[in-house]
Amino acid sequence: MTYCVGLLLDAGMVMLSDTRTNAGLDNIAVYRKMFVFENPGDRAMVMMTAGSLSITQTVMAKLQQEIDDASATPETSIMLAETMLDIAEIVGRTLLEVSVAIGDKMSKSSRAPSATILLGGQRKGGEMRLFLIYPEGNFIEATEDTPYLQIGEHKYGKPILDRVVTRGTSLEEGRKVVLLSMDSTIRSNLSVGMPLDICTIPAGECRVADRDRIEVGDPGFTAMSEAWSRVLREGFAGLPSE
Amino acid sequence: MTYCVGLLLDAGMVMLSDTRTNAGLDNIAVYRKMFVFENPGDRAMVMMTAGSLSITQTVMAKLQQEIDDASATPETSIMLAETMLDIAEIVGRTLLEVSVAIGDKMSKSSRAPSATILLGGQRKGGEMRLFLIYPEGNFIEATEDTPYLQIGEHKYGKPILDRVVTRGTSLEEGRKVVLLSMDSTIRSNLSVGMPLDICTIPAGECRVADRDRIEVGDPGFTAMSEAWSRVLREGFAGLPSE
Repeated sequence: MTYCVGLLLDAGMVMLSDTRTNAGLDNIAVYRKMFVFENPGDRAMVMMTAGSLSITQTVMAKLQQEIDDASATPETSIMLAETMLDIAEIVGRTLLEVSVAIGDKMSKSSRAPSATILLGGQRKGGEMRLFLIYPEGNFIEATEDTPYLQIGEHKYGKPILDRVVTRGTSLEEGRKVVLLSMDSTIRSNLSVGMPLDICTIPAGECRVADRDRIEVGDPGFTAMSEAWSRVLREGFAGLPSE
Repeated sequence: MTYCVGLLLDAGMVMLSDTRTNAGLDNIAVYRKMFVFENPGDRAMVMMTAGSLSITQTVMAKLQQEIDDASATPETSIMLAETMLDIAEIVGRTLLEVSVAIGDKMSKSSRAPSATILLGGQRKGGEMRLFLIYPEGNFIEATEDTPYLQIGEHKYGKPILDRVVTRGTSLEEGRKVVLLSMDSTIRSNLSVGMPLDICTIPAGECRVADRDRIEVGDPGFTAMSEAWSRVLREGFAGLPSE
């Protein structure tokens, strides 16, 4: 499995993904699930993927192929499309095409692979937008009321998001809270694992900033994780009984 | 859905269940999911159920019918069975029988109802034991390494258990941590709801103690929930950045 989370804040967007991919418990590997497409000042897009690696890799390859195509148009290339909505539609269409093509092959062995994509970004002159694109190519969007979207193993890390995140959360706080959400998930679910990919897209800048890979044993992440454990343990100890 | 959690601690056992039952989002009701069978000093058993209400209610009715039967034997009545293992086997057998009977009817409409039971208790002269009984009647048991078991919507409330619970946790702390685990679940998942049923089985006493129903707006639970939110928010604010 996977855990990816994106925040849509007034100050910008925060995107975080893990990198663990597994085909059964005995076949675990590290694959990047975060993909950045950017023309700084004009557009910035970050996609994070969950589900069948054969689908998500093919989708990313096809999107790149359309970008590189000499005859690319705003209808086919996410680097030329006019708006984030148009981009979500291109990504959704590509995801559906690839899912159907691979699903047709797989149906012969009664497996049904699927994949889901988080797409966040901003196009010059447009709003920041965060989409969750389903295997069928349709999508939902983060709003004022729901300033985050998750894919993959989303349940473990949801309580901390529900308690902390509002549209007014700063980018720095946003990075902290998604990392704590990921930390809780990694502790409770083997199928989600380090290293992590994180980046932010500051509002109005149409560029990807603070793009980091956080490796196992990263001192900052470890210190934050331990400090959080301490907060929980000490806070728990000091809590009134029911 | 449902969320139930049982702790197996050196000091005793803590059992907590919610009461929300739903058949679709528009048909929500309160049903007790915690069932106590007790002959204080001789045996104490607490069962908590998740899954199809038609199955779990029938299982509990059948167990009670066997207890009340004048010709009950240690092989049929959980109030006469010699050991907690024998009791888990009677419950598992009854669960399988009921599941198969109801499943046969349901298969005509291609629905597959199922249910799961957490069984915790102690028999005089025996150890405290905590079982998770699957729809097929087989079961697993909490151990030194894994001092808790959960059924239903278990993911939201798992991180806090993973960080806090050890076999050395006291009963009072145990009650606090299962309530916080439940609080996180209720906040993040609509299908789990108040009121709550909680009880403890102190080690070696073969009796159920501190059996409470916690209603919506319970001052102690509300204060604990708010104090915990404060701990999380303030702890989060004071955390170093990554």
